[in-house]
Amino acid sequence: MQWDQRFAVRTAHMKRSTIREILKLTAQPDVISFAGGLPAPEFFPIQRVQQAVDVALSERGQAALQYSTTEGMPELREWIAARLSNEQITIHPDNVLITTGSQQGLDLIGRVLLDEGDRIIVENPTYLGMITAWRPYGLDYVPVPTDADGLLIDALEPLLERNPKLLYVVPSFQNPGGFTLSVERRERLVKLLAQYGVPLVEDNPYGELCYTGKPRPSIFGLDARNLGITTPDGHVIYVGTFSKVLSPGLRIGYVVASLPVIDKLVQAKQSADLHTSTLDQFITYEVARDGFLEQHVAHLCEVYRERRDVMLAAMAHYFPPGVTWSKPDGGLFLLVTAPPHVDTTLLLAEAVERKVAFVPGADFHVDGGGQNTFRLNFSNANPELIEAGIQRLGDLLKDAIVQPVH
Amino acid sequence: MQWDQRFAVRTAHMKRSTIREILKLTAQPDVISFAGGLPAPEFFPIQRVQQAVDVALSERGQAALQYSTTEGMPELREWIAARLSNEQITIHPDNVLITTGSQQGLDLIGRVLLDEGDRIIVENPTYLGMITAWRPYGLDYVPVPTDADGLLIDALEPLLERNPKLLYVVPSFQNPGGFTLSVERRERLVKLLAQYGVPLVEDNPYGELCYTGKPRPSIFGLDARNLGITTPDGHVIYVGTFSKVLSPGLRIGYVVASLPVIDKLVQAKQSADLHTSTLDQFITYEVARDGFLEQHVAHLCEVYRERRDVMLAAMAHYFPPGVTWSKPDGGLFLLVTAPPHVDTTLLLAEAVERKVAFVPGADFHVDGGGQNTFRLNFSNANPELIEAGIQRLGDLLKDAIVQPVH
Repeated sequence: MQWDQRFAVRTAHMKRSTIREILKLTAQPDVISFAGGLPAPEFFPIQRVQQAVDVALSERGQAALQYSTTEGMPELREWIAARLSNEQITIHPDNVLITTGSQQGLDLIGRVLLDEGDRIIVENPTYLGMITAWRPYGLDYVPVPTDADGLLIDALEPLLERNPKLLYVVPSFQNPGGFTLSVERRERLVKLLAQYGVPLVEDNPYGELCYTGKPRPSIFGLDARNLGITTPDGHVIYVGTFSKVLSPGLRIGYVVASLPVIDKLVQAKQSADLHTSTLDQFITYEVARDGFLEQHVAHLCEVYRERRDVMLAAMAHYFPPGVTWSKPDGGLFLLVTAPPHVDTTLLLAEAVERKVAFVPGADFHVDGGGQNTFRLNFSNANPELIEAGIQRLGDLLKDAIVQPVH
Repeated sequence: MQWDQRFAVRTAHMKRSTIREILKLTAQPDVISFAGGLPAPEFFPIQRVQQAVDVALSERGQAALQYSTTEGMPELREWIAARLSNEQITIHPDNVLITTGSQQGLDLIGRVLLDEGDRIIVENPTYLGMITAWRPYGLDYVPVPTDADGLLIDALEPLLERNPKLLYVVPSFQNPGGFTLSVERRERLVKLLAQYGVPLVEDNPYGELCYTGKPRPSIFGLDARNLGITTPDGHVIYVGTFSKVLSPGLRIGYVVASLPVIDKLVQAKQSADLHTSTLDQFITYEVARDGFLEQHVAHLCEVYRERRDVMLAAMAHYFPPGVTWSKPDGGLFLLVTAPPHVDTTLLLAEAVERKVAFVPGADFHVDGGGQNTFRLNFSNANPELIEAGIQRLGDLLKDAIVQPVH
């Protein structure tokens, strides 16, 4: 059968994500890859997960293996609601939907809110998984320039007059930029949301992985305070995940939003996969509920802080003049900027030959720029490998600056 | 924020599925519910799952909790490929995509193949989960009449001339009809697929749960044989699941198809949820791989056969004249037809008051009929409850026939 002639019109937009294709390229064991976005597997709490499974299967095995509600496990939704509630905002469990990873959260938000050709305001650079999730809608992305304190509010305001459907922001330890939206800008941002009546998707997978300073207040909570409400009925849809703080393999994410939004998302999720793995929800709840997760996150912050610091020090040592990089306060990523004539997409093939890998930055930049940038992940390699890999990259950059790759 | 004005145009199509709303209604413990499609939880192989988790976490814990490929766990794809290969067709693991339940298989097929307003040929009645999955596309459903041997091939042929995008069929122990497409009709069907060049989605969640006769040959394999090929490059996309033979809570389904189709589905799945739970795939593989699953399915067939037989005998005893029902050779469901003046949607409220529940048949019928039908599940209640529930339903039907509910 000639399937090519049978595919839906919208599949013309589809292409495999750059990141995942590169991950395949760099699977050889002698490549030091800073390309993925993988947590360090040596810190997965395997024993704690084993205990959680034992409890789930021995105490509630029949329920753990049965169909469950689309909304998600009530106890896990309660735990998330309590954890995200603070002085500014009180989350009710009904405001929480469990999703199959935060990628599904983005997918469902797209289904519920986006129409063909909608205008979306994003940070430049922005998160590639969002672009993948929302590719079917053929969106008109409007980039906002960013600096070390996140998106430039002064540049945002005129864009809000162009009738955007929504803003999409990764406010803390952004992927790929490594920057964090300052508290002062968050406060200006929520005022603009209210002024222009525009919704915002706050994608916050890394917020708890904070190595410098304290975790920043959520836009979600600041928006509620600005509106004088204490419920999540403002402008913000919040997307979270256990992937970076517990395990990505379990695929447990969540969306927190106003009830009408949750109601639509639940309907979309019924179509998508009925519900998220019951067992994985039980495991996540058992691991999280007794305070273990806080301890675990504190430990992750220690080891990831060390890796970030090793990478920053190695870059200062090995990278040639003319190369700059972000200094993230948390998260998993930083962005390197080479001189303008270095095309990092062309450079990648040479890098892989020299047994080191990164993600070229062009795909993250919706303004068509970023050809001379690349993203590095610092969570997945140990300090020795980081040092060795950054040395290889430094040599590569020195050669590329002198003699550009074509 | 006034979210109602912000939702995408397509969300106007969304509504919560009838089945799930009813499941909520019937959660009271004294209601005998034949409404759900739940496997019997008392037969979940909890100990075997526990062993599988122990192996997965102790031998490959880091991998089990890490991100994994969108296509799915290679060993599980190999196992599925080997299991579905037979004299007619050889499946390569690359032809297999692991999905988050078979619901996601349907969702992804919709994304990849369906455009707004496409014409789809379905059995009448048809599966509600498919209608939910494909609701965003505003499809033109063309129903084919069915009898005890499945869809009527003579009625199908003229419909194939109306340029349908695809056919959707649940060929064995259909939900909700309980009927099975005969081998003779399957053979005629694949000839028509070739003649008209039309794709078919074969949704086969129940095929192994066979209580009378032998499991029927897949349309997938017959289509290949008809085309003189031994690879899955014919007209059929096959959707399978471990939900009914192992555990629905693990959400492990799969799609088997030609490589160009799998390639597009993989891209759609990257957008949807990156990949299915790594741990749940490891568990499923460990449970399946050493022959345990075959023994387990044989056991399920014994206990479900008894429940089916108890329900059929009870219906013969308690149901009044003028009521008929299908006699399924397997699966989980049968369909009851009351006299034409009985509206089963109206009857449901009265049924729940009398502590028994079913799913009214109207939603399954895309021709606007079926108001006097309802679906019964016979897998989830034990024989004593089946007997008691059917007696309640019999009394209800006697009253409804004499004095219709308004």
